[in-house]
Amino acid sequence: MAELTTRALLCELLRLFYDKDWVSGTGGGICGPGTEGNLLVAPTGVHKERVEPEDLFEISIADGTIIERPQGDLNPSECAPIFRAIANTRGALSTVHSHALSAVLAGDLTISEDADHIVIDRLEMLKGLPGVGNADRHLVPVIGNTERESELTGAVEAALKDPRFETARAIIVRDHGAYLFGVDPWEAKRHAEVYHFLFQAIYERARGERS
Amino acid sequence: MAELTTRALLCELLRLFYDKDWVSGTGGGICGPGTEGNLLVAPTGVHKERVEPEDLFEISIADGTIIERPQGDLNPSECAPIFRAIANTRGALSTVHSHALSAVLAGDLTISEDADHIVIDRLEMLKGLPGVGNADRHLVPVIGNTERESELTGAVEAALKDPRFETARAIIVRDHGAYLFGVDPWEAKRHAEVYHFLFQAIYERARGERS
Amino acid sequence: MAELTTRALLCELLRLFYDKDWVSGTGGGICGPGTEGNLLVAPTGVHKERVEPEDLFEISIADGTIIERPQGDLNPSECAPIFRAIANTRGALSTVHSHALSAVLAGDLTISEDADHIVIDRLEMLKGLPGVGNADRHLVPVIGNTERESELTGAVEAALKDPRFETARAIIVRDHGAYLFGVDPWEAKRHAEVYHFLFQAIYERARGERS
Amino acid sequence: MAELTTRALLCELLRLFYDKDWVSGTGGGICGPGTEGNLLVAPTGVHKERVEPEDLFEISIADGTIIERPQGDLNPSECAPIFRAIANTRGALSTVHSHALSAVLAGDLTISEDADHIVIDRLEMLKGLPGVGNADRHLVPVIGNTERESELTGAVEAALKDPRFETARAIIVRDHGAYLFGVDPWEAKRHAEVYHFLFQAIYERARGERS
Repeated sequence: MAELTTRALLCELLRLFYDKDWVSGTGGGICGPGTEGNLLVAPTGVHKERVEPEDLFEISIADGTIIERPQGDLNPSECAPIFRAIANTRGALSTVHSHALSAVLAGDLTISEDADHIVIDRLEMLKGLPGVGNADRHLVPVIGNTERESELTGAVEAALKDPRFETARAIIVRDHGAYLFGVDPWEAKRHAEVYHFLFQAIYERARGERS
Repeated sequence: MAELTTRALLCELLRLFYDKDWVSGTGGGICGPGTEGNLLVAPTGVHKERVEPEDLFEISIADGTIIERPQGDLNPSECAPIFRAIANTRGALSTVHSHALSAVLAGDLTISEDADHIVIDRLEMLKGLPGVGNADRHLVPVIGNTERESELTGAVEAALKDPRFETARAIIVRDHGAYLFGVDPWEAKRHAEVYHFLFQAIYERARGERS
Repeated sequence: MAELTTRALLCELLRLFYDKDWVSGTGGGICGPGTEGNLLVAPTGVHKERVEPEDLFEISIADGTIIERPQGDLNPSECAPIFRAIANTRGALSTVHSHALSAVLAGDLTISEDADHIVIDRLEMLKGLPGVGNADRHLVPVIGNTERESELTGAVEAALKDPRFETARAIIVRDHGAYLFGVDPWEAKRHAEVYHFLFQAIYERARGERS
Repeated sequence: MAELTTRALLCELLRLFYDKDWVSGTGGGICGPGTEGNLLVAPTGVHKERVEPEDLFEISIADGTIIERPQGDLNPSECAPIFRAIANTRGALSTVHSHALSAVLAGDLTISEDADHIVIDRLEMLKGLPGVGNADRHLVPVIGNTERESELTGAVEAALKDPRFETARAIIVRDHGAYLFGVDPWEAKRHAEVYHFLFQAIYERARGERS
């Protein structure tokens, strides 16, 4: 019953995120807690706003084994290894993978200086993240993109363990998007909304040359 | 019955404002008139578009005492002291607390000159505010942000009493958002829509170097 | 029966235009053909997305007399004299009054050169206007704003009769918005969509210094 | 039965694309596979979000003959010759014709250098196109606009056969919009979403002088 509810919630959130242009063109994805410590994962290569509860995969966090698969010719999201790394390292069982333009444009801000992170400050919205205040300089890691999504896993794991990024609940992938995570789908939703606001804000400020 | 209607209206407005990106990431809030001169206040830290009529608190305007609390583990909005200050000073029983990016970017316009207000002029939309015409130079106070929301109360009260801001129905909090108020939820909604238009307009004009 | 349908359509269009941010803050309005050559006009000062079919006024195009008024304490749109001028001069029985920011920003493009019009060219969308092709230089009049809306009527009438603006189905009011008209509500809707696209396009092009 | 489903899907997609501002002002259109290798084509000059399944034309891909016409005074989309050219050359039975501003602004990027294409690179979203990777430099043809839509057909055919554009599933028409295609409506939808993201991205990057 609880899992049925989580499945329905994940699909509802995909529709919501599609309306926000975060998971268009079949891109992006989501995971959440399944039964017995497993992960529910959306399928890859499908129109994300059309995913139904019974289309989700259930996979093992430990080794990625598929515990339960949906009917039909579907494959689990290519993000699965990254979703597992985030769950293992941070205990965050729900991750939103966003293909939002604002995440890409925020990641672009690092190009001229070859930085491995962006700095966000002077924004109340930072308080939507646990342990972060509006007087903090908040660092979000930015990793380079790779040709295959699974190849990102090493850089994701390194960023998750980097003490500079301890309070970050997001990882930007340059030219690609972002992973945004929380302990459950509701927290992941909150963090996703907070970070998309922050990405847009720092991009607009940088463009207005006021950052 | 009337209070039930107000409760439902406040929740409907939160859903509307969520769709406009004014209360994302659990940020922002709203209050409206309750029974016997009290205030209905949304809870803090919840997804604002999911608030139901029975989730609202009823508090005393005079001293902030909680008259009626919802079931469950909820706390009233941290804006409550500010909502009360606005109600006490201006007789405005409905305030929208917005976390819109346009409010932040409009507030940024004061940084270079260290001003405590923005000036809005040459816009018909000003006529959506009582006693304001489109030939007026309309001043909106901009106060600095604080680490805790309740610490804003003193600056809010000072701005509300400042004769320069007599016709203002909004206070911008730098790096944070805005409070927008009216005598009832319908007027607060109108003022919120008017000011968000004005914020966006002056920001776009400033960026185009035409202000 | 036909009039009932027109009333419902006008209200549906107001809701649609509200979602597009063209009639926010109780601003903007619409009119359409009523019975016996009269005009159906939305009330002033109300939240336009909440207008119901029975809230519309029916007025005489010839002299503005109110033929039929809704129940309650409502007044007809202050645009009524302008709606009548457009109907009289152009035979256009449906006009949308937009408070869109794109109309204001397009009107701003004339400020530096004190022009009384904008020029739109190199855009396929021009073909959505009767008698206009995509190779045309299309002139849209821009008139100055006045303190009261009814004071615009003279300038509106002059623009409507100006041979330079013969194919224009829009008048921009600087710092205010635009009137967009057609022979019936469907054509007015089409023209409103066409012009809002054109306004946004020329503004974006001017900002990108490509105009 | 299958054709009924396709008709309904095409109309649903038109409503979706209207909400995205891709087919406003009666502009834009769509086609999809009909019975016996024919094409279902939306009518011209109508509000695209109001098209109903029974309003579609069925035409022959080979010679454009109308196999089945809807009741009433409708004409098939002026894009029909282009839809047929795309179907014949690429085997793509579903094409979206978009009037999105982002397509126009992306096309503008070629003006200063008189190029016949745009280059898109450094974007993960490229992987939403068959045979395209995120390390590729992806070329999208840009053709000049003509006074009548059918006059575009020759340039469309040349672009479709140009080996530089072999992996492109889009053709931009300068000052006009774009054609975006796939083997069926679902693939066409995916490609349309991918390309509109890409158009917006390269335009925003060019404006930020980071391209």
